[in-house]
Amino acid sequence: MSAIKTSLILCALLLLVQIAVIHAVFAAPIIATGDLGVVIERAAGAVSIVNTSDNRTLTRATGLGDLSHASVVYSRNERYAYVFGRDGGLTRVDMIAGKTDFRTIQAGNSIGGAISQDGRLVAVSNYEPGGVRIFDSATLEAVANIPAEYEPGKFSKVVGLVDAPGNCFIFSLWDAGEIWIADLSNKEQPEITRFTDVGKNPYDALITPDGRYYIAGLFGEDGLAMVDLWHPDKGVRRVLPGYGRGQAPLPVYKMPHLEGWAVAGRYAYVPAVGAHEVLIIDLDDFSEAGRIAVKGQPVFVMSEPGGRHVWVNFALPDNDTIQIIDTETRGILRTLTPGKGVLHMEFEPRGQEVWMSVRDLDQVQVYDTTTLEKIATLDIDKPSGIFFTARAHKIGL
Amino acid sequence: MSAIKTSLILCALLLLVQIAVIHAVFAAPIIATGDLGVVIERAAGAVSIVNTSDNRTLTRATGLGDLSHASVVYSRNERYAYVFGRDGGLTRVDMIAGKTDFRTIQAGNSIGGAISQDGRLVAVSNYEPGGVRIFDSATLEAVANIPAEYEPGKFSKVVGLVDAPGNCFIFSLWDAGEIWIADLSNKEQPEITRFTDVGKNPYDALITPDGRYYIAGLFGEDGLAMVDLWHPDKGVRRVLPGYGRGQAPLPVYKMPHLEGWAVAGRYAYVPAVGAHEVLIIDLDDFSEAGRIAVKGQPVFVMSEPGGRHVWVNFALPDNDTIQIIDTETRGILRTLTPGKGVLHMEFEPRGQEVWMSVRDLDQVQVYDTTTLEKIATLDIDKPSGIFFTARAHKIGL
Repeated sequence: MSAIKTSLILCALLLLVQIAVIHAVFAAPIIATGDLGVVIERAAGAVSIVNTSDNRTLTRATGLGDLSHASVVYSRNERYAYVFGRDGGLTRVDMIAGKTDFRTIQAGNSIGGAISQDGRLVAVSNYEPGGVRIFDSATLEAVANIPAEYEPGKFSKVVGLVDAPGNCFIFSLWDAGEIWIADLSNKEQPEITRFTDVGKNPYDALITPDGRYYIAGLFGEDGLAMVDLWHPDKGVRRVLPGYGRGQAPLPVYKMPHLEGWAVAGRYAYVPAVGAHEVLIIDLDDFSEAGRIAVKGQPVFVMSEPGGRHVWVNFALPDNDTIQIIDTETRGILRTLTPGKGVLHMEFEPRGQEVWMSVRDLDQVQVYDTTTLEKIATLDIDKPSGIFFTARAHKIGL
Repeated sequence: MSAIKTSLILCALLLLVQIAVIHAVFAAPIIATGDLGVVIERAAGAVSIVNTSDNRTLTRATGLGDLSHASVVYSRNERYAYVFGRDGGLTRVDMIAGKTDFRTIQAGNSIGGAISQDGRLVAVSNYEPGGVRIFDSATLEAVANIPAEYEPGKFSKVVGLVDAPGNCFIFSLWDAGEIWIADLSNKEQPEITRFTDVGKNPYDALITPDGRYYIAGLFGEDGLAMVDLWHPDKGVRRVLPGYGRGQAPLPVYKMPHLEGWAVAGRYAYVPAVGAHEVLIIDLDDFSEAGRIAVKGQPVFVMSEPGGRHVWVNFALPDNDTIQIIDTETRGILRTLTPGKGVLHMEFEPRGQEVWMSVRDLDQVQVYDTTTLEKIATLDIDKPSGIFFTARAHKIGL
C-alpha cells in the first residue's frame, strides 16, 4: 500500500507541476508585437491593449493611476509600453502578457517621457520636483537624476522632453526660459548643454521627424525657440516671429500640442494658437508659407504617412469635428463629425487606417484613409491618447 | 501490485504529456518581434535570424533554395518574413518559432516581392512565366494571377514590383516597356491600369518613401520613367534625361539597385549608372541638383534615418569599400574598408547602428553611426541582404 501511496503522491506532484507549466503557456501566448497598441482610458486609469490587424481590443491593464494627461513610449522590441501619468507614475505594461509588470511613483507630478535612441534609457520630465529622472529601460532602476536647478535653490518645471540622435534627451524649463540637451552617451554622467534666455515660458516642444530641429513654443511671447541639433554651437534661434497669441488674441481654449506638427515634404503644418487656422511652414528657412482656414482652434495637426492629407481636431466648442486637409491643393477635403470629445488620432503605420478617440461616446472609431468611411468602432471607456507599437522605431516618438 | 502498476502507468503518461507541454513552451518562447531581422545566406540557401538589441544571431532557418538573389518583406505584426528566392520559391519564416513554416515554388524564376498596404496580400514578380502571382499572406493560398501578357501570346518578364497606397501593386514589364498598376481593393478581381511606351527595357524601379512616385530605370535608353501616383491620369513622365549609361559609358560592372535611393529632405541621392558618382535629385521638380564624386560605381546609396549621412557601397573592384556622404556639405565624411564583398547595408530603425554584409569574410559587421566605429561582428556564412522587421511598417519596403 505504501508503494501505491508514494506513486499517487508522485503523480499528484507531477500534476501540480504540469498545471503550473500549462498556466505559464496560457499566460504567455504567442503574440507578435508589430500590430499592437494601447489606448489610454483617462477616467479609469487603465489602458486597452488593441490589435490593429483585427481592429479589436485584446485586453486591459488597470491600476495606472491618474491618466488625465498621459503619454507612452515603446521598448525597441515593441514588447513594453512605458506609460507616463499625470501623478508622476511610471508604469510598464507588458504587451504580450497583457498586464502591468512594473509601476513606481517616480515624482510628484509629471508631464511626459521619452526613450533613448538605443532603447536602453527611459526619461521622465517632472514638474515636482522640477527635473528629469532617467531609468534603465530593462531593470527600471534609477540611472541618473537631472534636477532643473537654473539658479541656486531654484528648480523649474520641465516640459517638451524628447529623445534625439546620439542618445540625447532634450527638454525645456518653463520657469527659467531655457532649453537643455542631456547627452547620455555615458549614462552615469549625463553631459548637459544649457541654452539660456530662449524666450518666456516654453510650454511644449517637438523634434522634427528627421531628428534635426528641436522647437519649443513660448507661452509668454510670440515666436518659437529653435535649436538645430546638427549645429548646437549656433545656439537657439527665434523662428516664426508671428507664431503665438499675437496682439489681439482670441481666447485660447486649449493650447495646441506641438507634438502634433505634421511634416509633409518640405512643409510642416502647424496649429495656430487661438486662431482658426493651420499654418504652413517652409522647413527650408522656417518662413511662413501659407495659412489654411479651419473650423475651430486646432489641437492636433497630424500627417497621414506619405503626407498627402493632414487631419486636424479642435478645441471646444468644435471638439466633435475632424477636418482633412489636402496638402496639394491646401483645401479642406472633408469634414467629419465623429462625436463630442475627439481627443486624439493615430495612423496605422502604413497609413491605410486612422484611429480616433471619441471620449464622450466611449468609442474609438477607425476610418479608412482612402474612402474616408468609418470601418470599425471599439467600445473603450473615456478614451484619450492612442499609441501604436510602430512608434518604437521612430525618433522623437 | 496491479494498482501500483496502474499508478505507475498513469504517472508515466502524465510525464509524457508534461514533456510535450514543456516542449511546446520551449518551441514558443516569449519573443517580441520589434528588434528582429534576417540575413540572407546566399550560398547556403538559409537565413540567419538576428536580434538588433543584442547584436547577435538567434537561430537559422534552412532549406530556402536558391538565394543568390533574394528579398524579404514582413507581415504587419512582424511575426513572418516572406522570402522571395531566385528559383521562384516563396518561403515564409516564423520569426518567433525560428523556422520555416511554409514553402512553395510558385514560379520558375522570380525576381522579387511585395506586401500590400493592409498586409493581407503578398505579391511575387516572375520572369517565368512572366507575371505577378498574389497570395493570401495568412493562408498562403493563391488569390490572383496577373499574367504579363502584353500582346496576344507574348508574356514579359516582370521587374520593379512594389506596394503602394490604396492596396495597389505596381510593376514594370521588361520586354514590353510598360508599367502596370494593379489595384487589389477587390482582391478577387485586380483592376489593371496599363502604361505603354514608357521606355525601353525597364530593369528595376522604386517607390519614394512617401508612396507618391513610382520610378523605373531603363536599360535600353537614358532617363527614368516616372508615374505620379497621386495623379496617375497624367500618365508616365520621362525624368532625369541624363540618367543612364550616356553617350560614352564606362563598362557597368553591376547595375545599381534602384531600391537603394536615399531621400533626405527634398533631395534624393541616386547611384549613377557606370560613373563614379552619386547624383542629387531635387524631388520638387526631378531636376539634377548636383553630383558627388565617389570611389567607384555605386550600388546601394542609403540614407541614415534622419538623412544627415548617406552610405554608399560599390561594384567590383571597389566592393571592399563604404563611403559616407555628409548631405549638408555634400562631401565625403569617411571612407571605410570593411572587407571584400560588401553587398548590403541595413540601418537600425532609429539609426544608431548600421549592419553591413561582408560576403568574403563571412561576416556581418555592425557600426555605430555616430562614432563610425565597428562595435560588433557576427559570423554568418556568405551574407547578402539584411532585412529588419521595422520594414513591416513602411510603404514600398
